[in-house]
Amino acid sequence: MADAASREFFTTRTVGEALAGFRPDRRTRTETVPLHLALRRVPAEPVTAPHPLPGFPRSTVDGYAVRAADTYGVSEGLPGYLTITGAVRMGAAPDGAVTPGCAIAIPTGGVIPAGADAVVMIEYTAEVMPGTIEVVRPVAPGEGVVRADEDAMPGQEIIGGGRPLRPQDLGMLAAAGVTSVTVYKKPVITIFSTGDEVVPADTPELKPGQVRDATAAALAALVADAGGEPVFGGIMPDDPGALEMALRDALPASDVLVISAGSSVGARDGTADAVARLGPPGIWCHGLAIKPGKPTLLAECAGVPVIGLPGNPRSALVVFRLIGVPVIRLVGGCTAPPPEPSTRARLSRDLASATGRLDVVQVTVDDGLAVPVFGLSALLSVLTAADGYIVIPDEATGLDAGSEVNVILYA
Amino acid sequence: MADAASREFFTTRTVGEALAGFRPDRRTRTETVPLHLALRRVPAEPVTAPHPLPGFPRSTVDGYAVRAADTYGVSEGLPGYLTITGAVRMGAAPDGAVTPGCAIAIPTGGVIPAGADAVVMIEYTAEVMPGTIEVVRPVAPGEGVVRADEDAMPGQEIIGGGRPLRPQDLGMLAAAGVTSVTVYKKPVITIFSTGDEVVPADTPELKPGQVRDATAAALAALVADAGGEPVFGGIMPDDPGALEMALRDALPASDVLVISAGSSVGARDGTADAVARLGPPGIWCHGLAIKPGKPTLLAECAGVPVIGLPGNPRSALVVFRLIGVPVIRLVGGCTAPPPEPSTRARLSRDLASATGRLDVVQVTVDDGLAVPVFGLSALLSVLTAADGYIVIPDEATGLDAGSEVNVILYA
Repeated sequence: MADAASREFFTTRTVGEALAGFRPDRRTRTETVPLHLALRRVPAEPVTAPHPLPGFPRSTVDGYAVRAADTYGVSEGLPGYLTITGAVRMGAAPDGAVTPGCAIAIPTGGVIPAGADAVVMIEYTAEVMPGTIEVVRPVAPGEGVVRADEDAMPGQEIIGGGRPLRPQDLGMLAAAGVTSVTVYKKPVITIFSTGDEVVPADTPELKPGQVRDATAAALAALVADAGGEPVFGGIMPDDPGALEMALRDALPASDVLVISAGSSVGARDGTADAVARLGPPGIWCHGLAIKPGKPTLLAECAGVPVIGLPGNPRSALVVFRLIGVPVIRLVGGCTAPPPEPSTRARLSRDLASATGRLDVVQVTVDDGLAVPVFGLSALLSVLTAADGYIVIPDEATGLDAGSEVNVILYA
Repeated sequence: MADAASREFFTTRTVGEALAGFRPDRRTRTETVPLHLALRRVPAEPVTAPHPLPGFPRSTVDGYAVRAADTYGVSEGLPGYLTITGAVRMGAAPDGAVTPGCAIAIPTGGVIPAGADAVVMIEYTAEVMPGTIEVVRPVAPGEGVVRADEDAMPGQEIIGGGRPLRPQDLGMLAAAGVTSVTVYKKPVITIFSTGDEVVPADTPELKPGQVRDATAAALAALVADAGGEPVFGGIMPDDPGALEMALRDALPASDVLVISAGSSVGARDGTADAVARLGPPGIWCHGLAIKPGKPTLLAECAGVPVIGLPGNPRSALVVFRLIGVPVIRLVGGCTAPPPEPSTRARLSRDLASATGRLDVVQVTVDDGLAVPVFGLSALLSVLTAADGYIVIPDEATGLDAGSEVNVILYA
């Protein structure tokens, strides 16, 4: 991003350029959290098994621990006979060892006694007289047994760094006795709304020309989904000086600044002026080749990424999903983002698109058919009506009705 | 589920039968939560717009509010001329109305003044002398304007009931001034672990035969993902009487009981005995046609669904994803579950499967290739190594290498 400092004229960038090129170095510090608060948190480093898992050889079936060689050649017609010399209790060490010609009863999960190298399932045995079983099927060494280090060898990586922890990862850590994890702190994302017309969402009666702040509530939710901690910076009037001061105040405690800018050209220019004065390297791009969402500003000021969003709520949310969410994940140390829900569908009608610009089209999906939801970019109802969206890439001039499209679904 | 009460012998069910037939009537009560805590919560009823949105006709562009008829026939070669009689300020009512032959300057998002029915973009105008613009392109009525009720008409449903709230839904509610939502309470899911061998995850040193409770930590995470509130009931020994008492104590405060049962046949039978004594209608099925996960128990006791899971952590988690998560969503009022991430892939090798049984196979996915992760059902590492899983349906006898499969991805 160093070249941005010397850029005299702000260029419009493609979404691909932004995703590849706007990659701030900032990372949050780390903290240690208990396991029950670690779901979806991002481990700062791999976690290794402190000891072998499960830690002892276990039976995978209910049956008898035996020496496999004692069962070789047995069959329904020619059973083998073994003397029962004991029984393994769950959660306890076996009392004795398995000696030649003998067997020890064992439940699923029990400790394999010394001397035994296999477990014959109870279904293939019968206690023909007290203390003696017949065995009608041979077992190979290792059959019916989980090795002491089969789930993890000591020192083996059980959890990688950089990928949000999933439910099964927490299970694995619990199994290993790892009850706290060092993770990246959640990046603090300070969200500013701007615009003389914007009032708080809890304003009961609007004066003519006023609109409630819809974008901040939705952005906060997207920030939380991306693993960030949303903080409201407040609603700023269309006054670059006041905005600059508010942004400057928020810089030290923020990992990313997000500004949903005023809608008019003047308001947007004012936002750019305020951001430009925050500090080097400054504005990286002003204008993104995307529809809706062109008036997007990306900057880095005093080590903090700054994302200026379009004033229209719908455009702002479209751009934030595509550009803002990856930035938050990056700053939060997430190098392996979770998969997004998606589905293949056929397009219900032709869609036009200009080359050199990425188009994001909201769609409903019903029975494999993706139906575009049209409406002005000022309308939030287009987003709430949609099940997901399709992306028409920069190079395409449109999509034909019936063509197969990949729909990213809203979860 | 009424027929379950009279069932003398417990039957094995298919997963399809369980999903269609094990549908408890229980629903949580409702509560009202503020908007900033409402993400992914399930609205108990639809929310309607209390007034039209945006509430006033707005400009979608920077330009001049005009009477469309005043621009008819104008062109680059034959511009029209209009007198500027004012300017709309953001967030304020216009000072005057647009009269014939006149125009009022307006920023994007400004209130359309009375008399105007369109906005001509500033790009198609020029202020040829102070107070007069020339217009070089005609506009149609409605062009450049969002109608006062275009985002929502008063009384129109803006959010449906039963679907977890998404970021854009919160934005829409904020726009409408709806700052709290009536949602289903999160169902309380009490999780019991059983087994003489199971010790808490924070046990630093294991005695021979002991294993730490891995399942409870992972189940709690899956419960949270499904919109539930996990509560730990504790680790119970293999003692049906003690388990029954603990379950009975937990019933009044639980919306669902989950028991990860001991691994051995005796322990599983003990769990079934304890559940059977909890109350009518009792056990609905004991045994599920799924691999892994056969020793699954589904019951409803005194109005509370009870899910008995296999003792092996991996089997327990597989079954809980398929059967437990839908039950939690149902009890929590969610009638439109969010989409799951998935991807199409080619299978790397042949997979055998028995008919009449659903097989769940863990896979990694790399470059469109789904590679099965094999290992005993006792191994958690199979789940942590996997990117997702494929389902081989009951009727299939297996899948061929190269066949296209749908992989449900772990998020």
